[in-house]
Amino acid sequence: MRQMTGKQSISFAKAVYIEGSAAIVGEKEKDGPLGEYFSHTLSDPMCGQESWEEGESELQLATAKLAMQKANVRPEQIRMIFAGDLLAQSIASSFGLVDLNCPLYGLFGACSTMGEALSLGAMAVAGGYGDRVLTVTSSHFGTAEKEFRFPLAYGNQRPPSASWTVTGSGACVLGKTRSRVKITGATTGKIIDYGLKDNQNMGACMAPAAADTLKTHFSDLSRSPDYYDAIFTGDLGIFGHELCAHLLSNDGITMPKTFSDCGKIIFSEKQKVFMGGSGAGCSSAVFASYLFELLRKNEIKKLLLVPTG
Amino acid sequence: MRQMTGKQSISFAKAVYIEGSAAIVGEKEKDGPLGEYFSHTLSDPMCGQESWEEGESELQLATAKLAMQKANVRPEQIRMIFAGDLLAQSIASSFGLVDLNCPLYGLFGACSTMGEALSLGAMAVAGGYGDRVLTVTSSHFGTAEKEFRFPLAYGNQRPPSASWTVTGSGACVLGKTRSRVKITGATTGKIIDYGLKDNQNMGACMAPAAADTLKTHFSDLSRSPDYYDAIFTGDLGIFGHELCAHLLSNDGITMPKTFSDCGKIIFSEKQKVFMGGSGAGCSSAVFASYLFELLRKNEIKKLLLVPTG
Repeated sequence: MRQMTGKQSISFAKAVYIEGSAAIVGEKEKDGPLGEYFSHTLSDPMCGQESWEEGESELQLATAKLAMQKANVRPEQIRMIFAGDLLAQSIASSFGLVDLNCPLYGLFGACSTMGEALSLGAMAVAGGYGDRVLTVTSSHFGTAEKEFRFPLAYGNQRPPSASWTVTGSGACVLGKTRSRVKITGATTGKIIDYGLKDNQNMGACMAPAAADTLKTHFSDLSRSPDYYDAIFTGDLGIFGHELCAHLLSNDGITMPKTFSDCGKIIFSEKQKVFMGGSGAGCSSAVFASYLFELLRKNEIKKLLLVPTG
Repeated sequence: MRQMTGKQSISFAKAVYIEGSAAIVGEKEKDGPLGEYFSHTLSDPMCGQESWEEGESELQLATAKLAMQKANVRPEQIRMIFAGDLLAQSIASSFGLVDLNCPLYGLFGACSTMGEALSLGAMAVAGGYGDRVLTVTSSHFGTAEKEFRFPLAYGNQRPPSASWTVTGSGACVLGKTRSRVKITGATTGKIIDYGLKDNQNMGACMAPAAADTLKTHFSDLSRSPDYYDAIFTGDLGIFGHELCAHLLSNDGITMPKTFSDCGKIIFSEKQKVFMGGSGAGCSSAVFASYLFELLRKNEIKKLLLVPTG
């Protein structure tokens, strides 16, 4: 069975369902505009552990367990897990998920890892390799900032182009049991590098790849942006999102007003995060809570999610 | 179509072929017992670049290109790439493969990444998501030792339990075009952590997971170790490999004399690497050269490859 469409896209012959999802976030994320949608909030950012990394492992495990609970499945019913985070050696996933005792595929797509996990997970279910799989990713302000920017104790000033790493995790159980939310296809992105070197302006670094993937998606499936009720990039933030729309308009594609970005909506302006939220937990937590809920309630019928990284 | 077998295994309804493979290694690897099998050797470990990391990127790209050349395909004919390395943010893959302009899935399974790539790549081809995919991984002594152990300039003494990170990369083109080597199935491993903390004795850390995956594979497919002409773990090394056989014998599984390890055979004793080779380039380079050649020449008919990480 050929399920390829166009140059880079897949249309599943039989749709894959999201049987349950969950998102757990930190207090700052809970205080943002989407606060009410998250399943649970961490009162202790270390989750009772001795380091942020151990805390992120606990966060990812708790989110995975909650998604399984919502889907009403036990770990033994999960054929394989697709998981990742931003840390070297994917330690949040590898230490966090060990207790589930499930076969695991470790992924790294930086902040886009949830897109990668949903895409490969759906391919596995649709291909008949598993009746039910789990996808989960996370990021943590404490672990990511010191790895990619500065030690937190240094208290550096953040430039206006900076984004704020989301402390959060999102998880989805994918399977064949009919539910209100299904995955119908995926477009796999390429590495597009315009040579930007400013790690405090990640939106600009990521926008070209997001624009390229969107353009290819519309072309592969012969769809216009209006086909969707909502299109969400992952964590381009305010500036990167604008840049992405600009790049698309240069190619003759006008994005509708429903074009938004998970990083843009997770925090409010008064939370002083400048460009918005970012990290592998950003699109993951926003999709597994807010966007999933809109789909479940039929307030959005067709969503195009474009996690960036 | 259900292609699941037992608890953790897949048997492809239609086999996936390896249309071409290539391995490029460093000079130390070339000087080892498998030297004649490698496609090409790096005379300059930096590949003319200014850092080891840039060198590893070049190494991975060159290996990918050579595998495509051997399979007689152009990058435009590759539907997607499954790639990874040991570095934070998978930089050898993400910077190395950008010029191929192909959709990319970034993977992290540590030293087992080639097993993950072959497994997901074969699932993609068998599932009808791509007629042809590329799998490639790498490791580099210069980049890995400083990341995971000590700065090279520190000149630390290595304990007898240590292994030596292979400078090498292996790549395979998987597709539907009949060739002499095919992938018939895969068993996805779990994280098995006995709590060992010695990063200079990775063989002991990895042996329990390898033993568990082997045991599950035999049980899932109702096969005994004798079914295979050869069984190769990835990079357990001398001690880890012995430990793996011991753990299996405790479970009543006697491994045959054809049970070996890529890390054990890539270097000779006189090269003073103690336990043997390791890294994401170890099983990858050994499989894509020596083992692939044995399969191609029919000197081995049935191989079970169990990359470890």
